[in-house]
Amino acid sequence: MKFEAAVIEKFNRGPEIREFDISPLGEGEILVRIEAAGVCGSDLHIFEGRDPRIRLPMIPGHEGAGIVADMKGDVLDVRGNPVHPGDRIIWDRGVVCGRCFYCSVEKKPFLCINRKVYGITFSTADSPFPNGCYSRYIKLSSLTRIVKAGADISPEVLVPVGCSGATSFHAVEESGLREGETVVIQGPGPLGIFAAAFCRNRGAGHIIMTGSGKSRKRMELARSFGVTHLVYRDEMALESQLEFIKSLTGGRGADIVFEMAGSAGAVESGQHFLARGGRYMITGIAVPVGSVGIDVYENLVRKNASVRGVWVSDTSHLLKALEAVEDLRYPFEKLVSRRFSLVEAGQAIESVKDRDVLKSVIMP
Amino acid sequence: MKFEAAVIEKFNRGPEIREFDISPLGEGEILVRIEAAGVCGSDLHIFEGRDPRIRLPMIPGHEGAGIVADMKGDVLDVRGNPVHPGDRIIWDRGVVCGRCFYCSVEKKPFLCINRKVYGITFSTADSPFPNGCYSRYIKLSSLTRIVKAGADISPEVLVPVGCSGATSFHAVEESGLREGETVVIQGPGPLGIFAAAFCRNRGAGHIIMTGSGKSRKRMELARSFGVTHLVYRDEMALESQLEFIKSLTGGRGADIVFEMAGSAGAVESGQHFLARGGRYMITGIAVPVGSVGIDVYENLVRKNASVRGVWVSDTSHLLKALEAVEDLRYPFEKLVSRRFSLVEAGQAIESVKDRDVLKSVIMP
Amino acid sequence: MKFEAAVIEKFNRGPEIREFDISPLGEGEILVRIEAAGVCGSDLHIFEGRDPRIRLPMIPGHEGAGIVADMKGDVLDVRGNPVHPGDRIIWDRGVVCGRCFYCSVEKKPFLCINRKVYGITFSTADSPFPNGCYSRYIKLSSLTRIVKAGADISPEVLVPVGCSGATSFHAVEESGLREGETVVIQGPGPLGIFAAAFCRNRGAGHIIMTGSGKSRKRMELARSFGVTHLVYRDEMALESQLEFIKSLTGGRGADIVFEMAGSAGAVESGQHFLARGGRYMITGIAVPVGSVGIDVYENLVRKNASVRGVWVSDTSHLLKALEAVEDLRYPFEKLVSRRFSLVEAGQAIESVKDRDVLKSVIMP
Amino acid sequence: MKFEAAVIEKFNRGPEIREFDISPLGEGEILVRIEAAGVCGSDLHIFEGRDPRIRLPMIPGHEGAGIVADMKGDVLDVRGNPVHPGDRIIWDRGVVCGRCFYCSVEKKPFLCINRKVYGITFSTADSPFPNGCYSRYIKLSSLTRIVKAGADISPEVLVPVGCSGATSFHAVEESGLREGETVVIQGPGPLGIFAAAFCRNRGAGHIIMTGSGKSRKRMELARSFGVTHLVYRDEMALESQLEFIKSLTGGRGADIVFEMAGSAGAVESGQHFLARGGRYMITGIAVPVGSVGIDVYENLVRKNASVRGVWVSDTSHLLKALEAVEDLRYPFEKLVSRRFSLVEAGQAIESVKDRDVLKSVIMP
Repeated sequence: MKFEAAVIEKFNRGPEIREFDISPLGEGEILVRIEAAGVCGSDLHIFEGRDPRIRLPMIPGHEGAGIVADMKGDVLDVRGNPVHPGDRIIWDRGVVCGRCFYCSVEKKPFLCINRKVYGITFSTADSPFPNGCYSRYIKLSSLTRIVKAGADISPEVLVPVGCSGATSFHAVEESGLREGETVVIQGPGPLGIFAAAFCRNRGAGHIIMTGSGKSRKRMELARSFGVTHLVYRDEMALESQLEFIKSLTGGRGADIVFEMAGSAGAVESGQHFLARGGRYMITGIAVPVGSVGIDVYENLVRKNASVRGVWVSDTSHLLKALEAVEDLRYPFEKLVSRRFSLVEAGQAIESVKDRDVLKSVIMP
Repeated sequence: MKFEAAVIEKFNRGPEIREFDISPLGEGEILVRIEAAGVCGSDLHIFEGRDPRIRLPMIPGHEGAGIVADMKGDVLDVRGNPVHPGDRIIWDRGVVCGRCFYCSVEKKPFLCINRKVYGITFSTADSPFPNGCYSRYIKLSSLTRIVKAGADISPEVLVPVGCSGATSFHAVEESGLREGETVVIQGPGPLGIFAAAFCRNRGAGHIIMTGSGKSRKRMELARSFGVTHLVYRDEMALESQLEFIKSLTGGRGADIVFEMAGSAGAVESGQHFLARGGRYMITGIAVPVGSVGIDVYENLVRKNASVRGVWVSDTSHLLKALEAVEDLRYPFEKLVSRRFSLVEAGQAIESVKDRDVLKSVIMP
Repeated sequence: MKFEAAVIEKFNRGPEIREFDISPLGEGEILVRIEAAGVCGSDLHIFEGRDPRIRLPMIPGHEGAGIVADMKGDVLDVRGNPVHPGDRIIWDRGVVCGRCFYCSVEKKPFLCINRKVYGITFSTADSPFPNGCYSRYIKLSSLTRIVKAGADISPEVLVPVGCSGATSFHAVEESGLREGETVVIQGPGPLGIFAAAFCRNRGAGHIIMTGSGKSRKRMELARSFGVTHLVYRDEMALESQLEFIKSLTGGRGADIVFEMAGSAGAVESGQHFLARGGRYMITGIAVPVGSVGIDVYENLVRKNASVRGVWVSDTSHLLKALEAVEDLRYPFEKLVSRRFSLVEAGQAIESVKDRDVLKSVIMP
Repeated sequence: MKFEAAVIEKFNRGPEIREFDISPLGEGEILVRIEAAGVCGSDLHIFEGRDPRIRLPMIPGHEGAGIVADMKGDVLDVRGNPVHPGDRIIWDRGVVCGRCFYCSVEKKPFLCINRKVYGITFSTADSPFPNGCYSRYIKLSSLTRIVKAGADISPEVLVPVGCSGATSFHAVEESGLREGETVVIQGPGPLGIFAAAFCRNRGAGHIIMTGSGKSRKRMELARSFGVTHLVYRDEMALESQLEFIKSLTGGRGADIVFEMAGSAGAVESGQHFLARGGRYMITGIAVPVGSVGIDVYENLVRKNASVRGVWVSDTSHLLKALEAVEDLRYPFEKLVSRRFSLVEAGQAIESVKDRDVLKSVIMP
């Protein structure tokens, strides 16, 4: 059987549409017809050759949703439901070994030393193949964790759940957010929007989104996801931002600050918002940004506070993110800003640079 | 290649020594020459036909240690060390699916709904084969989690780590024991002896072992594993036992009580030992014992206390139990009471009934 | 200054309206004009002489809200806001010592061995006086923890926060409820209604309320507080109830069951609803009910599940319960079923027996 | 009654020995005859005028142990034992309000916004008086939390428990250390020595102490407190230190690093030692050190690791530290390097600068 996929053969070129053959399925493997593939900020890094994990040629796309086209053997999804051809599914983009120290002893599979990621760590020479979502089909190995999605959620809404949704949930979970706590979210991108909804679902009190005036549309949209206050950081001095946060919290500050802007500058400013006992969750920084200054006495020791890094996600985070979307309490369909066809993959990747675009989706 | 194993073909008979063939190894599989196989209380249940999971004919033995005789492909153990022929290893007796709700979302693989156990849930018709430890060899599937053991620990000392050690560690971990807390352990069997050492390693204050005067040798041995006080339950009224525990704790009672005696009677008495905020860990009850009366107001509500069940173990518990043995702080070699050859498997199983025997081991 | 209060002088009689003098305030003390006093199930126990802590004569009423009439010295509430005459406040009914093992080391003040409770452990001879809420005034000691309430919440809505709200929050917090978990609540009383809202706020998935057909009005009301399914236990066999719960959860069962019915029978049935890893929270049983049978192997060990008792509450629970009411997401005003004047205190206590009454309030 | 105390009247002068009167005791107050007062690094800061909390004239000394000379009313210690004249006691140097947000809601009294500290925040004009330990007597307010110490532990051994012991325990507790984890401790001072013992008591695996060759005596002493490896940071390049740590841990790195050196440089180097999932506990930095560079991507995000500040301690930490000393497993008496009389208070403070001195004690 033949199929088409978008392939990066040289950095900063293409991707090119190529035709490939699909080989027969092995036991437990699933062939998925991709309905929608998400375009993530890291796809731009990949395209530009800034991600050291990449081996060319490769099919990008680590966020996807699709319909089971074929499968071999019986498979249950992580909720215990049998998977059949015709079912709409999503899956954990990371495939973990289950046997290393982090998988079996720490039980933190997101730290698995053998973790592979569809659309990132596979080249076209690797198996299973096809192995990225910018493609009409993807083949999922028997170790891949599958979740059947409700038929009433459209595939482009499911797509961001798999990466930014799951990672954002991971950050909220590790923050230990308790009822009534005050939250600051830096950055109204997909990570931040998801975080707002997750925090609201978990009983947060004030949820303050900080962002640039250039992202005004996204900032306003954030209100629909539980954000209670907007702070435009380029229209207000840092000192005034801090005063505002303190005014909401009896002078204490924010219990949790989520860095979801992806910049060192966010860390430099956001650390000052912490209350005593506060937690600063660095979630958006996915590439090296150098050394960032922390006022360790004033912001950490004196406050008994912490700064924590959040690395990717695992299946538990994926499922919880999906459940929040299925719950229908928030308008997640509004996250999808633009839709592209497979041949427009290059434009789709470029669209990530546009500050008005929250999420671009390729529908092969 | 031919090998011999002890096989239960009919309940309450044998086991018979049979000869089998070993088929070629698949990718990631390991063939182990068994040096020592532990005899567990549940082996007696299996032999007598009281364990509903059993399908005959089968090779018993879920605790084992041995030398890698052959392997196919590269395998790392859970500590990240490469495994080679000639290495002494132990392994997680439970093989889990990695994809069900409990494995991938709850991250409690000991609750995996597809969990298989060497020496228990396999018949001689199943693969991998051989699949029990009362055998000269066992073949471990590629999903089995392996741990290389230090060469300086003898195999019969490693054996109890795999079942009672790991389960006991699980209980201590779930108890949330904090430094200085007072612990009561009911039952000086392998579970209880391990628990004493684990509690001491974790900073427990008083460690009180309760048991029968018929187990006086084991009770005395427990002192070498961190137990600070012995209470002979058949020589002291329950009320006096409670008074004694209170006298050690400023009138508060025990922070944690471990049921490791395997009887409903232990639950009936042990619940009264709890302090406010206490935790009662039912660990030894491995078969149905009917309904047990709990004074829910006096012992749970008024004390904000809990009763918790502990089910088997996972790889993290196994590794931590092993590390405690490797630490050489306690004389774990004293746990091994009797050694049997493979042809004496029937006697070995019978020896579990003897109150003076802490641990019997078969050395094929 | 003179004031009137309802006093129990003999069990099963009165209460009588008596006039008393108010003595001058000490440093840090607050005199509160009671606007509303809640009638709790335990007030009936007190009235009938079934509560061993009671010394007569005494003024009942441990739930109250009122206006600061007078105060001596500066007082901040627990949110850090200054308290002034004219402010509407509630307070932690329990006054704790701050220096015992449970207060200072365990940091679980609800277990304080010196805990005193307004309206329960004080007689009219004790100081501070007046010290119960069935009164025109109450005097709060300098150790009492105060919370200023928003002026837009009516006092009778605040009243149940102080006892059933806070205790219910305590139960939800100790349950460790995580996003998406399935909850069963046994009993549509104030505890259960609050629990539904708290669970929903914390991201619960299915919330199933079980109750009798005789409480149909309350059961239906529970839907407004986040309950997603109603199970009438007298119209459905236990086995069918369990099947229903399993049908909602991929066959797993309930992650958490809250006993909020106050009966041993609830424990006997509810334990069977637990999923693997489940937690059974006994919250409603406030008086001895004798020994209750637990199938420890099937419901606790095999499932690695627990049964936990929940004892009263502390200031953290009170504040979190208040915040949920202030959040205005649920119609807490509907909890108040009947209003009484001070002279009707006897009838108010009797009204607790009426199954249609969710909450009675005395407005002195 | 008259008594003498050492008083700082001007910074960098004295302290002067002055004579004062003791006023009558109030209810719940305790008069203690000081047997030993610890000299802490922060006493030097106080003496030099670098601590902004100080109001002169004042009696320094926040670590003390002594004999109850007089008391008014019944007092129980935090273990529930009655306190009598003649008892040897220690106490929590911090007196907390019990009613602020951090005391009553967060239940983290070490963050109390009204926290007062004997020997630091009191001037000679404040009550209770005397209120510092460089004195023949101290008067403890009724809110002070008391612990009776075993009579067999000498007062100079008890002294460091109250500040560095308690703070060190706080750090170990917040680190969440689990059995078998690898620990690096930066700095062989009292904080670090205590931490080694606490980590060992809690089941740590490797315990690596890093320090300067100038502190060789203290480094060697650390071995007696559970340290398994010494790393002289001025004799080994940072890269080699890291390689050494990785060689012990299957290439993973340290699970926990304790900064107990009090310098920004320690943070700059120590962050690199972290394993995936690691925690860096800043404990020794007690004065502002400016902004410290953290490689947030490499050391926090990519590793899902955290940097946490630890601020002082509360009564629970004090008691646990004391219990470790009472346990007699480690030679805590070796911490006391030098003894001074009250008139030598100035020399005692100066002795803190001597790298061979672990702990100086004043014995009035």
